[in-house]
Amino acid sequence: MKKLPLLFILLVSFMPAVHSEDGYRLWLRYDRINDKSVAATYKKNISGWMVQGNSPTLSLVKKEIHSGLTGLLGNIPEVKAVKASVILAGTPQSSEIIRNLNLDTRLQKLGREGFLILTTTYQGKKLTIITAQEDVGVLYGTFHFLKLLQTHQPINKLDIESSPRINLRVLNHWDNLDRTVERGYAGFSLWDWHKLPDYIDPRYHDYARANASIGINGTVVTNVNANARILSPYYLEKVAALADVFRPYGVKIYLTARFSAPIEAGGLKTADPLDPTVQQWWKDKVKEIYSLIPDFGGFLVKANSEGQPGPQNYDRHHADGANMLADAVAPFNGVVMWRAFVYDENVPDDRAKQAYNEFKPLDGTFRKNILIQVKNGAIDFQPREPFHPMFGAMPQTPLMMEFQLTQEYTGFSTHLVYLANQFKECLDDDTYAKGKGSTVANVIDGSLDNHQLSGIAGVANIGTDRNWTGHPFAQANWYAFGRLAWDHQLSAQSIAEEWLRMTFTNAPDFVNPVKEIMDNSWETTVSYMTPLGLHHIMGWSHHFGPAPWIKDRHRADWTSVYYHQANKDGIGFNRSATGSNAVAQYAGPVAEVFGSREQCPEKFLLWFHHVGWSEKLKSGRTLWEELCHQYYAGADAMKAVQQKWNTLEGKIDRERFEQVKMLLDIQYKEAIWWRNACVLYFQTFSGMEIPAGMEKPDKALQYYMNLEFPYAPGIRPQW
Amino acid sequence: MKKLPLLFILLVSFMPAVHSEDGYRLWLRYDRINDKSVAATYKKNISGWMVQGNSPTLSLVKKEIHSGLTGLLGNIPEVKAVKASVILAGTPQSSEIIRNLNLDTRLQKLGREGFLILTTTYQGKKLTIITAQEDVGVLYGTFHFLKLLQTHQPINKLDIESSPRINLRVLNHWDNLDRTVERGYAGFSLWDWHKLPDYIDPRYHDYARANASIGINGTVVTNVNANARILSPYYLEKVAALADVFRPYGVKIYLTARFSAPIEAGGLKTADPLDPTVQQWWKDKVKEIYSLIPDFGGFLVKANSEGQPGPQNYDRHHADGANMLADAVAPFNGVVMWRAFVYDENVPDDRAKQAYNEFKPLDGTFRKNILIQVKNGAIDFQPREPFHPMFGAMPQTPLMMEFQLTQEYTGFSTHLVYLANQFKECLDDDTYAKGKGSTVANVIDGSLDNHQLSGIAGVANIGTDRNWTGHPFAQANWYAFGRLAWDHQLSAQSIAEEWLRMTFTNAPDFVNPVKEIMDNSWETTVSYMTPLGLHHIMGWSHHFGPAPWIKDRHRADWTSVYYHQANKDGIGFNRSATGSNAVAQYAGPVAEVFGSREQCPEKFLLWFHHVGWSEKLKSGRTLWEELCHQYYAGADAMKAVQQKWNTLEGKIDRERFEQVKMLLDIQYKEAIWWRNACVLYFQTFSGMEIPAGMEKPDKALQYYMNLEFPYAPGIRPQW
Repeated sequence: MKKLPLLFILLVSFMPAVHSEDGYRLWLRYDRINDKSVAATYKKNISGWMVQGNSPTLSLVKKEIHSGLTGLLGNIPEVKAVKASVILAGTPQSSEIIRNLNLDTRLQKLGREGFLILTTTYQGKKLTIITAQEDVGVLYGTFHFLKLLQTHQPINKLDIESSPRINLRVLNHWDNLDRTVERGYAGFSLWDWHKLPDYIDPRYHDYARANASIGINGTVVTNVNANARILSPYYLEKVAALADVFRPYGVKIYLTARFSAPIEAGGLKTADPLDPTVQQWWKDKVKEIYSLIPDFGGFLVKANSEGQPGPQNYDRHHADGANMLADAVAPFNGVVMWRAFVYDENVPDDRAKQAYNEFKPLDGTFRKNILIQVKNGAIDFQPREPFHPMFGAMPQTPLMMEFQLTQEYTGFSTHLVYLANQFKECLDDDTYAKGKGSTVANVIDGSLDNHQLSGIAGVANIGTDRNWTGHPFAQANWYAFGRLAWDHQLSAQSIAEEWLRMTFTNAPDFVNPVKEIMDNSWETTVSYMTPLGLHHIMGWSHHFGPAPWIKDRHRADWTSVYYHQANKDGIGFNRSATGSNAVAQYAGPVAEVFGSREQCPEKFLLWFHHVGWSEKLKSGRTLWEELCHQYYAGADAMKAVQQKWNTLEGKIDRERFEQVKMLLDIQYKEAIWWRNACVLYFQTFSGMEIPAGMEKPDKALQYYMNLEFPYAPGIRPQW
Repeated sequence: MKKLPLLFILLVSFMPAVHSEDGYRLWLRYDRINDKSVAATYKKNISGWMVQGNSPTLSLVKKEIHSGLTGLLGNIPEVKAVKASVILAGTPQSSEIIRNLNLDTRLQKLGREGFLILTTTYQGKKLTIITAQEDVGVLYGTFHFLKLLQTHQPINKLDIESSPRINLRVLNHWDNLDRTVERGYAGFSLWDWHKLPDYIDPRYHDYARANASIGINGTVVTNVNANARILSPYYLEKVAALADVFRPYGVKIYLTARFSAPIEAGGLKTADPLDPTVQQWWKDKVKEIYSLIPDFGGFLVKANSEGQPGPQNYDRHHADGANMLADAVAPFNGVVMWRAFVYDENVPDDRAKQAYNEFKPLDGTFRKNILIQVKNGAIDFQPREPFHPMFGAMPQTPLMMEFQLTQEYTGFSTHLVYLANQFKECLDDDTYAKGKGSTVANVIDGSLDNHQLSGIAGVANIGTDRNWTGHPFAQANWYAFGRLAWDHQLSAQSIAEEWLRMTFTNAPDFVNPVKEIMDNSWETTVSYMTPLGLHHIMGWSHHFGPAPWIKDRHRADWTSVYYHQANKDGIGFNRSATGSNAVAQYAGPVAEVFGSREQCPEKFLLWFHHVGWSEKLKSGRTLWEELCHQYYAGADAMKAVQQKWNTLEGKIDRERFEQVKMLLDIQYKEAIWWRNACVLYFQTFSGMEIPAGMEKPDKALQYYMNLEFPYAPGIRPQW
């Protein structure tokens, strides 16, 4: 039983009233800059601020600049007239001064949401303007400007043009109407449906603001395992109330559409997308929605996947279903995001191949306002997956990336795992769809195939926990998702640095070591969970902890043995030409590399190849030895992280220091657990000893196999 | 759709970093006293503070005095030696100064938890001491002293002796292991089992502190619809971690015991309390618990009620079951709180009579460390119920009151209902069990029947919502429960005043009108929900909204018609001698009054009598007219409350002002809903017109009957 230091108890309790570091303020803390010279320089460069123009969004700009400057620097006054070193925000339409600067050409280049931050002069006075074509761009620019101050960047001569590379930058909340969150580990759903629409929780505003600060412009507030009731008038009124809160922050609301809603909600006898009454029902429903929410974003749909209804129930194609919905929302400029996460245990082919097989033939048959939403990899958000073969395979259709921020497979909210590295690996991988340089990112942002419509989604890790994400460091994944959605060319490291400086401190003796911790955290987790391309060996249903032994279930593709295929000869899923040939779904150069036992990167080895226990790998170790080496190194790395974290005591607030400390303790124990359970289990196939020097597990395999967690969070309890 | 004032949006968002009035700080805000003369007087009387002694609890005392005095008055230093006007806290054991004051006689009178606050002199210097026999008493005294400051009471000459009238002052959390809260409307369960025991959420400390501040000394952290898994080693370790947090605050932890745990958790074939293996299993399990939690409080048990297992499954009595558990915990000074909330649809008698019938014959057969926990009334926490006939009927057995703080039947967390008036009505009612003056309170506190062991429980309204209770004013019910548990002779009004002053402001132009709102709120709610003794006419399963039409269900005693018995002749449940004769369960004088059509208080009329629609009541109105009058008056009263609240704008923080405003809007709409649905429905029996002057409902009865709320909070969703 853990005894918490009394000092900690005393210091962190008693509901601090000032500058609580409970994580609620995320990366928007705006605390007084304590570096005197930095503060002095800023104050010299900022004599006052003005926001010209009146609109709900510009009011938010005003509030943000005021609270930001006041918090960071103390009393920086709002001024009515330009004097030297004033910050001025507005659009050419809202501000005569900005209009007179004749920036239209530059602004048009930046598109609807882009912004310009420019140090210039006006009537001889130095002026820093934050401007854009539209108010929301000014809001984005304001957050960017304040971030410069938060991160102690120079501001004396700014010329920043920034516009998002991807149109739709969307969170997906797998929130149910009973407020449970599927695969949610940060408490429960933010949306208090019972009290909506009349009671507006202040948290809705804070949520929208946090998203605006990182350029997220859309949110799907319901689970992809959808519930038709959200489309009822009773709930639409509540959704509209949320939309009203989000709108000035530039955040559109979307809903998941249950394909069978015409039956469940409409009382029709069918949901056949080619049935005129069904089509009309959706048209009428969409019209109803837009009468309440004029800028409703559209629908996200999971169909004919894991039991969800869809067009295939009526022997129709995905495109038939998607097009019907797309036609309904098109008159209102809505979109349909149709998920490609499909796999069927009755289809006797490698699960990794099925989405491609179902969707590629439909390329070119989808309406213009449809995006096909594709998970980063072909299985399901495993700690590491090669990029999905659909990227690059459907040039006529906008493909929307779906990343997972919530750590369903990477430790829930007790493991510190900075996922930006995982996102970048995927985004930067080259599909070779149109020769070298056809990165996944270029597919997603539309540049490879010349699509105007582009999108990226993050399955949210946000809930009612005070710090929004459960683990203090999980916030960084929300932050990084927003930053990469805006600009996928940013590096994971630079984003981590931004976040650390804003969220904790600019002090290098904290930022540097912690940045390194974050930068290594994903590979460490891969190492102690699913090294060398292993995947899908987690606990049944709740996905908590290791369970590589799962077999003999009603769906083979939900077992673990399906994926690791361990036997006395070796381990790994042969997806090469001699196996399922999933590699053939990739473009030539990629297929060649993945399909080749020698060329395949070892990080994907067991994803594509069945490898003998005794085969030598690049390190000189046998596969078995390497497997053990990875598992043990991953767990050891966690110990080192703990030790490193402990040296940072006193460099940040005690509250979050201690919280992370406690969580690292859990993470280390769970890393050991993963290591032991997996090594012991795979050993039953390899028949080989755990290499010398690696501490033998202190429990037997049966102990791990007996563990039960009927109330692990994120899924309905297992009775 | 409600459009929130933009000003509100701006003012309450942006995650304020200082003195946030989001309700988290409850009544323990310790903000600077802004009344200059009050503050000056206090500073004159408090030159410094000392806490003598070292223990976890005294460390909390130190912290509380420091933060309280600093917050309220500014820099009041900790001193090492007594000088004039110092506040000194400690026990005679921990403080030589206090020991030398020779207060033992007075302290012994105060018992284990009582405290003394005394202005005295020591070596010629004026000294205010806060002392007690035990550290926890000093903690209670400290909170009391700080409350004086918070409420601007004089402190120059204090002589306060205070000790609790009831031993066990306990919260019952109906929290499930999946973190849903049965009948919970304040978010979800505070206990993050997945992260326990290693991760200690700071909120656990804040929870314990809040309870300590109102003298609550125990908490049952699991649902009475119990889950045996809490008794597994995996969970006991987590419970122990919570117990460790609570201990220094004087809060003991209890668990609900699922009677069938020997089978479910132990693998036994039976749970028969007379079976030696079962008895041994419980003994072993209890021993295991106490090895982890040395001061474990004991068990709360719901048995043979609403499907829960119990001794009657084995043809044993309640006492057989309770005694078995009591014997197991007795060696460790534990108790068993055995609930009397029993009723069986197969027993062909008035539900209101069944608990008495089952338990009274067992009086005298329970072990000494058992309390029988009895709801305030004989049905189930209805807005108003006459006191439970068991009070006064079991003189040989300590009866423990069970009040409901969570507003299962009084509007969830959207209705402002100050329940202290309801508690007081019950506590002050005279059972006449031993003649006049045999109040329910005297039964509960043990004084009537000379019991040492006494207890009172409140079904908690606490959850993960930022303000703990959902509705800002629901906090007052938690507060009032603690105050009445300590001293049931306090008035509801004085408690409300304390709470308002501490939670909002001392300004009379806020306190006075709001106190009045609170004081009338319960009767108002009774009036628009269940006037004149009506009861149990709420929505099916979720209990949300009115549904007096419920009939023809698998259990008659879960319908509404069972309770109101409306027909063309009249309405009401005849519990008099000509009916079920439930009145005979009361002592003579009470039975006579309740059983008499003329003498029965009209507030209970339809609880005890079936009354004709045309019968005249005291007001001169017919029953039908009075019923309408009550419903309409209740709804009208809500409108007046709204109007009164609006006049208070600017007197408190905008954040909570607006939150309450939004909630009052909901409450008023729901009051209209109750009024309309009930009046229209009962009209189908009376056949009479709604009296002139009362606005006719704008919807038909069928509209109300068609309303569905499958995701109303507090219960598993209805599909």
